[in-house]
Amino acid sequence: MSFAELWESLLPIGRDPGTGGYRRFSWTDADLRCRDWFRATAAARGLTVRADRAGNLWAWWDTTPGAGPAPRARAVVTGSHLDSVPGGGAFDGPLGVVSAFAAIDTLRERGFEPARPVAVVAFTEEEGARFGVACLGSRLLTGAISAAAARGLRDADGVSLAAAMAACGGEPDGPGPDEELPGQVAAFVELHIEQGRQLADLGAAIGIGEGIWPHGRWRFDFTGRADHAGTTALPDRRDPMLPFAATVLVARQVAARHGALSTFGKVRAVPGGVNAIPAGVRAWLDARALDDGSLRRVVEEITAAADRAAADHGVAAAVTRESFSPPVAFDPALRARLAAALAGRAIKAPALRTGAGHDAGVLAARIPTAMLFVRNPSGVSHAPQEHADAADCETGVAALAAVLEELAVA
Amino acid sequence: MSFAELWESLLPIGRDPGTGGYRRFSWTDADLRCRDWFRATAAARGLTVRADRAGNLWAWWDTTPGAGPAPRARAVVTGSHLDSVPGGGAFDGPLGVVSAFAAIDTLRERGFEPARPVAVVAFTEEEGARFGVACLGSRLLTGAISAAAARGLRDADGVSLAAAMAACGGEPDGPGPDEELPGQVAAFVELHIEQGRQLADLGAAIGIGEGIWPHGRWRFDFTGRADHAGTTALPDRRDPMLPFAATVLVARQVAARHGALSTFGKVRAVPGGVNAIPAGVRAWLDARALDDGSLRRVVEEITAAADRAAADHGVAAAVTRESFSPPVAFDPALRARLAAALAGRAIKAPALRTGAGHDAGVLAARIPTAMLFVRNPSGVSHAPQEHADAADCETGVAALAAVLEELAVA
Repeated sequence: MSFAELWESLLPIGRDPGTGGYRRFSWTDADLRCRDWFRATAAARGLTVRADRAGNLWAWWDTTPGAGPAPRARAVVTGSHLDSVPGGGAFDGPLGVVSAFAAIDTLRERGFEPARPVAVVAFTEEEGARFGVACLGSRLLTGAISAAAARGLRDADGVSLAAAMAACGGEPDGPGPDEELPGQVAAFVELHIEQGRQLADLGAAIGIGEGIWPHGRWRFDFTGRADHAGTTALPDRRDPMLPFAATVLVARQVAARHGALSTFGKVRAVPGGVNAIPAGVRAWLDARALDDGSLRRVVEEITAAADRAAADHGVAAAVTRESFSPPVAFDPALRARLAAALAGRAIKAPALRTGAGHDAGVLAARIPTAMLFVRNPSGVSHAPQEHADAADCETGVAALAAVLEELAVA
Repeated sequence: MSFAELWESLLPIGRDPGTGGYRRFSWTDADLRCRDWFRATAAARGLTVRADRAGNLWAWWDTTPGAGPAPRARAVVTGSHLDSVPGGGAFDGPLGVVSAFAAIDTLRERGFEPARPVAVVAFTEEEGARFGVACLGSRLLTGAISAAAARGLRDADGVSLAAAMAACGGEPDGPGPDEELPGQVAAFVELHIEQGRQLADLGAAIGIGEGIWPHGRWRFDFTGRADHAGTTALPDRRDPMLPFAATVLVARQVAARHGALSTFGKVRAVPGGVNAIPAGVRAWLDARALDDGSLRRVVEEITAAADRAAADHGVAAAVTRESFSPPVAFDPALRARLAAALAGRAIKAPALRTGAGHDAGVLAARIPTAMLFVRNPSGVSHAPQEHADAADCETGVAALAAVLEELAVA
């Protein structure tokens, strides 16, 4: 099956026919259909699928006849995730999974026989769109989040992660780490669409990730007093919408000053009546910067501004860090091998740094890890307009096949 | 049954046991339970309940034996509404309905026999919390909104007003005006909790409404471009949250300058992912001012500021008026009769003007109409802390009984 056919087979799942945007939240119907697609795609290639205790799916290519469940040598693993943000694009995540299967097809067509086990992985809840913690599947796998903390996570409807997994026939003992699996992996390479325009500006179809900015999510709770919008005099109000608005504007200025990124993409006013001053406004800040120190200063300055604005309006402000990812530098030796393998095949692949988190960034704490990026002409991501040209996707598959060929040797 | 007992019988319906706030949206389970309460309360008093084509409930006290459905003389009507804003208080609306029944009890205990029909009315969807148009029941009744426009209204889940009514066994022909009913009413008096602190400052338990400020709701749509929060450079962004925030701050300044009121109590970011720059932000402005000219200038200035802020960020802004209520002056002759009746019973009742809309304001276009307000010590409304002291509620019932006695003469 060609890359294009494989790509098309996944495309309809979870797509809004009106907007073209995707909604593939973990442990929902769309996610289960993605998992069925993964199992069928693996089965068609004779790959053995196993789920780990976090619900991540692994499709094993192990050419040794009679090999048991424990691989005979440490494995080379590639893959990404299948879940999406609300209204997300088609490429963020799925491109890495589809390209992984397509790269295995390429290697087999060449008659390549790996000297190490090779696996394709699809991580669960990478976007954190349902349970609020990005890279949840890889964090659980590696113990970066404890099983107890993960079990306490709840979605917007109050459904716990454990209940959501159990309802889908997932791990009956509840989600948890896998003590042995990370140690069985010699290298992990994630291919991903670029979420910016560096490759477009550099005129390259693919690039090699150098590292990931530190980033995190902070919840801002402004608590005022609900009141009638039509009768409460302005000086008598304790309206939390006003300090929230002031904080949004400050956050942009602070990020610009530090060469960082800050975004308020989610906000809720409670109770949310048109003719009621809200009792509270809850909003989430996504902030990223070049290094830990810059990020800490960015968040401190925004928090201080929120406190001042809240005090001006008789409103209480509370800031809670919901997640944090330290900076990641991918494995230098592994990056050098990737660069050499691609240079040997005349594939131009400049080095890139990104503000986006990835499962590769979580795994990098336990496993030699690297990333390949595929050019995104508009740079748009997390939106239906997210796009990579077919020719660049094919180059991505060729590059990934070259990398696996380089790594899957004894 | 005492006022207190009657009040307690309604209190549990639709109350959140955690916050104490109410959620009584029209044509929901809580609303149907309020309607059952209204019918049972009327039945216990031998009053005949009829629903009009807008779903408003009327309980008729007609002392003439053998009187047909058409009243023999034009009626005196009192009442208010039973629906709430999300998380609303117990008094806004229900106090007027409970006081109406209690006032009839008072008159009957005195042996009073009205020379005109007297009715208690409970209007539907006064808050506009489900279908977005305030005073929907009284607007439909009087033709202030057309049946066609009302039938097209949909709630947040896309359920139409007609479908919601039909599902509750309401009007099978769909909602519509009542051509005859308004002409059968000689006077309407609505008793309501005050939603500010004028009476508290004046040291009076009740007041007489002079009129209502013009007010309306405007929907602000900021349309930008969804993008990845972790990779999109600040200058490349078209983030609609920023002009929304700027507009919130300007709206407050503009209202203060004009001695008006403006509130953004409801906002939605789409798609609403923490790590995605939103594609759009939709928010609603509630604005009120002393007169039409002031209100028009307030909204024009806020709209101009929204346009400028949107342009600064490559975002499109659109402002849509969703509802508008012109200023209301209650009937001077009726107000004078109320004032005389209360003065005759030594009940202090200063005149008040309010920024809050009421069904009385809608009916005033067709029927001689007046309002009584009951003191609210904190001024808080549309929130669980909304409160009136029991003694003031009793004074309200006594005042309403006095008014009905004054008006229900031949």
